[in-house]
Amino acid sequence: MVKLFKTLQGSKKSKARLGEIRTGHGVIKTPAFVPVATKGTLKALSPNFIKDIGIQVAFVNTYHLVTHPGCTVIEKAGGIHKFANLNIPLVSDSGGFQVFSLAKEKIKHFQADVRGDEEPLLVKISDDGVKFRSTYDGKLIEFTPEKSIEYQRKIGADLLMAFDECIPYGSTYDYSKRATERTHGWLLRCVGQVQSAKFKVQNENLKLKINNSLKTENCKLKINQYLYGVIHGGTYEDLRKKSAEFVVSQPVDGVAIGGVAVGESKKEMRDQVKWIADYLPKDRPVHLLGVGQFDDIIDLVKYGVDTFDCVEPTRLGRMGRIYKISNFKFQISNSEVDILKTIYKNNLEPVDKNCRCYVCQNFTKAYLHHLFKQKEILGYTLATYHNLWVMERFFDKIRILIANNQI
Amino acid sequence: MVKLFKTLQGSKKSKARLGEIRTGHGVIKTPAFVPVATKGTLKALSPNFIKDIGIQVAFVNTYHLVTHPGCTVIEKAGGIHKFANLNIPLVSDSGGFQVFSLAKEKIKHFQADVRGDEEPLLVKISDDGVKFRSTYDGKLIEFTPEKSIEYQRKIGADLLMAFDECIPYGSTYDYSKRATERTHGWLLRCVGQVQSAKFKVQNENLKLKINNSLKTENCKLKINQYLYGVIHGGTYEDLRKKSAEFVVSQPVDGVAIGGVAVGESKKEMRDQVKWIADYLPKDRPVHLLGVGQFDDIIDLVKYGVDTFDCVEPTRLGRMGRIYKISNFKFQISNSEVDILKTIYKNNLEPVDKNCRCYVCQNFTKAYLHHLFKQKEILGYTLATYHNLWVMERFFDKIRILIANNQI
Repeated sequence: MVKLFKTLQGSKKSKARLGEIRTGHGVIKTPAFVPVATKGTLKALSPNFIKDIGIQVAFVNTYHLVTHPGCTVIEKAGGIHKFANLNIPLVSDSGGFQVFSLAKEKIKHFQADVRGDEEPLLVKISDDGVKFRSTYDGKLIEFTPEKSIEYQRKIGADLLMAFDECIPYGSTYDYSKRATERTHGWLLRCVGQVQSAKFKVQNENLKLKINNSLKTENCKLKINQYLYGVIHGGTYEDLRKKSAEFVVSQPVDGVAIGGVAVGESKKEMRDQVKWIADYLPKDRPVHLLGVGQFDDIIDLVKYGVDTFDCVEPTRLGRMGRIYKISNFKFQISNSEVDILKTIYKNNLEPVDKNCRCYVCQNFTKAYLHHLFKQKEILGYTLATYHNLWVMERFFDKIRILIANNQI
Repeated sequence: MVKLFKTLQGSKKSKARLGEIRTGHGVIKTPAFVPVATKGTLKALSPNFIKDIGIQVAFVNTYHLVTHPGCTVIEKAGGIHKFANLNIPLVSDSGGFQVFSLAKEKIKHFQADVRGDEEPLLVKISDDGVKFRSTYDGKLIEFTPEKSIEYQRKIGADLLMAFDECIPYGSTYDYSKRATERTHGWLLRCVGQVQSAKFKVQNENLKLKINNSLKTENCKLKINQYLYGVIHGGTYEDLRKKSAEFVVSQPVDGVAIGGVAVGESKKEMRDQVKWIADYLPKDRPVHLLGVGQFDDIIDLVKYGVDTFDCVEPTRLGRMGRIYKISNFKFQISNSEVDILKTIYKNNLEPVDKNCRCYVCQNFTKAYLHHLFKQKEILGYTLATYHNLWVMERFFDKIRILIANNQI
């Protein structure tokens, strides 16, 4: 089996590093941005724009795909890459974030996690896993470590996340400790599930080989999936460090940092990564879940983070908040054009004169303003295109800065 | 000045003909479909798909553009082609259809057209023109023949429509006669307005030439606009024939047929074109306003119609009604896939196995079903792409049939 990650160069100035994540669907040059294709589509963007923009990898949400359209049809289609025509490496999450963020408020009000054995009205968390009612149609859905892995294996992303509990911001030390330990227990079960699944597939492949009827693509799909363990610990330094130590010690292919950017201040959020910087693996890729603001990214690559997923560029784009970053002065926080403002009604300049993207080369702020005011779909598409373009150029620049030991 | 229209070949079987409409923004091979970009965007479709699909020409609505974003900014941008990045020939309507369709119900209830000189609460039609309140913000907007032409000249489309009253279906003979005569009077004023505008621009260009500072693109924009007169007459054969005679006798660059497909049966609609087939010009292009169903088109090209605009393929696409026409058997009415139906949930076939478009080559019905169920923007984009692709291939086929004297 090919090694998933290769460090190409480390910065002399920080823990920032240039690397490559080599998946069955292509190589990701890191540090890299991972835009979010929640339900199997980068919202408002046709897949044929992916190459133009230079998007290397995307993120899909297991919870959403399990509820709609369901894993069965995705698996039957040959996996999410084929189903959604996304011919790039894909990361799937464990479903934990959605399950727990949907559960968070309910737990407070109903203390649903201390219920007994009966089927939950809303959500029930136990050491075994989580049962909850779909927010779509009330159907009972169960996420356990094993089920999360099986869902993700069927979805067929390249990089999978172990099932984890996303600890709500403001949780007590005791709750955070208990939840982190539960997540660790779940990690062991995920590792076991992946190994037994791989063993099973290898056996099947062996049988097929003997029968001389092995189809390479079927084999690849099931084998070239890599598991990331997820570090938790909430806002507590010792819990974060213990969790990092534990996760890194496991036979996982990559390490993710979870439960950050869930309500804490920027400083608190960055501290949670800083605390564990020395614990992160040199031989495996490091993913930070849910972080994607320019100033955060520039600081967090310095701690050794390789990939970042975030809905911000696409979500802001659909709200008409379009990135404008003169000369990529990344030290200051990014500026945005709020295209719905009346000041842009007659502005015949592009969003950013220095931007070479399709949108800035062909459309003015006045036209984008018109599209957004009239709720024309093209507005959402163009804003999404531009914001992702800026994000990709930002990471191009970050990689150059690391190569030159400037960060 | 280059001649706008050239007949390349007439069918030996009918009045159907192959031709070319030569505009400042390119040549339209006719018969041609004219998809509708109401507010300056082919809804849900990025302009960079236009070439892929083979869209030759598009239609914009003057009423919508006058209210949003307004003519001034479009003119300042250098015209609608530049403003909306639509680098193909464009047709603008006169505003009449929207003005009268918005007014229609109100007239019934309020008899607003028999009011006096005061400003209208809703709408007021007189021989001079129409005053009405914007449906967007209640602002008073006036459409007269001169204003319609000036709006259209500022918008900068290649092919303009003379201001016309769209006679409501079911109107009496007397009302239809009166309205048609009013439209004829307006046509004379439109012709005069275009001629005086051209004269003015020629004079200005002459002055600039003398001063040696003529910019070719400015000159072109104002001069290469062509006027179509619009035939009316409602559902009355003699009125239609008289109107055709009158409009064709005027110094117009093209002839349009208006006020059809406004509620009548298919037979009635086709009769309105059939009645005037012998009156249509051989040296000028003929446009049919607002008709776009497959079976209608195939029959109406036989009467000598060159171009057809219609919202149907794009609007149906956004509703999830996706064209499926096996082997282009155009004699029978087209079939559609209603992609929202549950039967497509697990259907991993493309919409049409025989279709070579981007959508059918890359996406399944199950994925499109998923996108539509989840109201994902990509669904609207892909359905629009496919429906317009089918429409363009349908016209490719029609041109071949005419070339072979098969229709």
